Amino acid sequence: MAFTEREVISVLQEIFATTDSRLTVGIGDDAAVVATNAQSIITSDMAVEDVHFKLEWSSPFDIGRKITAANVADILSMGGKCDFLTASVALTGGETLQWIESLARGMKHEADLAGALIVGGDIARGPKVVISMTAVGNSPSPILRSGAKIGDGIYLSSLTGWSAAGLELLTREISINSATAEKALSEFSAPTLDYSIDFLGATAMADVSDSVLVQAEQIADASGVQLALNQDLIAAAPEFKELSELATELSADVMQWILAGGEDHVLLATGANLPGVRIGSVVAGSGITGADMKKAPVSWSHFTH
Amino acid sequence: MAFTEREVISVLQEIFATTDSRLTVGIGDDAAVVATNAQSIITSDMAVEDVHFKLEWSSPFDIGRKITAANVADILSMGGKCDFLTASVALTGGETLQWIESLARGMKHEADLAGALIVGGDIARGPKVVISMTAVGNSPSPILRSGAKIGDGIYLSSLTGWSAAGLELLTREISINSATAEKALSEFSAPTLDYSIDFLGATAMADVSDSVLVQAEQIADASGVQLALNQDLIAAAPEFKELSELATELSADVMQWILAGGEDHVLLATGANLPGVRIGSVVAGSGITGADMKKAPVSWSHFTH
Repeated sequence: MAFTEREVISVLQEIFATTDSRLTVGIGDDAAVVATNAQSIITSDMAVEDVHFKLEWSSPFDIGRKITAANVADILSMGGKCDFLTASVALTGGETLQWIESLARGMKHEADLAGALIVGGDIARGPKVVISMTAVGNSPSPILRSGAKIGDGIYLSSLTGWSAAGLELLTREISINSATAEKALSEFSAPTLDYSIDFLGATAMADVSDSVLVQAEQIADASGVQLALNQDLIAAAPEFKELSELATELSADVMQWILAGGEDHVLLATGANLPGVRIGSVVAGSGITGADMKKAPVSWSHFTH
Repeated sequence: MAFTEREVISVLQEIFATTDSRLTVGIGDDAAVVATNAQSIITSDMAVEDVHFKLEWSSPFDIGRKITAANVADILSMGGKCDFLTASVALTGGETLQWIESLARGMKHEADLAGALIVGGDIARGPKVVISMTAVGNSPSPILRSGAKIGDGIYLSSLTGWSAAGLELLTREISINSATAEKALSEFSAPTLDYSIDFLGATAMADVSDSVLVQAEQIADASGVQLALNQDLIAAAPEFKELSELATELSADVMQWILAGGEDHVLLATGANLPGVRIGSVVAGSGITGADMKKAPVSWSHFTH
């Protein structure tokens, strides 16, 4: 590297600088000192080059946004608000200072959207870029996976499947010049978290990081209920028509994208009269029903698995 | 891997299980829910295989202990107590379940010593083992690097240099059958943090992760003072004689180990009448004095730098 760790840290200190009153001591001491509530929510997520992202597919800005969104989504899915983030990054030494800056600006961009501050982290040398973030947030009453009740509706904060569609375009190296294809690519690179969705009345909630099927099953198991998905409801969702047309164009199964795709960082919730997209009902029983697809449902698998 | 991520997580859930009242929701949901104070301290540290540790030099248990100690030390060095830790680990897929368990037990061992709980994390696939931890703690009044006052003494919680001595034994492949050499190797693999030291009366404090020189300079800069080190005081420290004899045996410079070695995770503090090892005085001026060594002071450099 043509620059020292100290130079990198001083650039990061500048990018992450804040006068927010929640922060007493920021980057530069052994640890950050922050204001917290009596109850805090903590979560960590790690993303590895060529497993969770590829440098030739995503800009550093988008990579920074995506890993930040993944962490924030885990806080949102507890019914919480994200306050603080730390970011530890292994760099190969082949990066330019601009690349690192851009990664940091992507993190800052998403953190700003979430109302969160980046308060610390670490830089290490590694054979691939590895980004590990931790989010600390708060919620007056955390929403767990275990609270789904028979009679609840099942909701998504927005339609899933876009990230899987983007991945399919990239892996098959198909270039389609349409707004739909562009949205799929952009959602794959850095999913748009809907910070305005109000799921605080939810009985159970999870972040769709693996797939709707995986997370629905987790909620069903934790709550001791069955999640009955309804593909007619899904087909009536906003954006379904566009996504379905893209799937047809690629001879792909749109329900596979929606239910078994992953990394959308959409919220999956159960409850009564929630906003978002209704996709089914909570009933007595166990597991999931209504998930039949043309292809066998394969769960989201990272590139190298 | 001959086992699924779910199996690994269930093993980790068992190892990290706790009935501690600070934890409301543990591993298994999107995030942990914990009890925090009005002010929290947050820090993150990342360790990369072949940069911060070598699999042939350290057991997974010791690797787990070391990275945990590194995170906890950053909380202690703020005058804080560590409450919660998250651990995100990239695995190559070549690890056995026993190896992963042993890594986790090392983390748990050190977390127990610190009175901290491991409440979450992530597992990813990567080309090398990468471990990223975040520590969350609390302190009624955090001790920063900026508080050193002219007239203060300079103290170490215990003598540094052991980890550097261990690294020298390993890199030069020298095998010495003595308690001193064994201590050096053991301190390199997993430094012993002194959780009983009472530095709460310190005016400034830092964790010696880089070296005494680097951290002393950071305190001098942040506090606008000079840190005058005194090698006569250092030479009078408990354990100096053993370490010095080992250095002689290896034709190494003991002061180089003590002042420019690193990764001891000893605490460096300024203040009046502190316990531990006194190594100098805070005076008017800037930077450090008294750091003359036989060799030019090189700072701690990781294996691949």
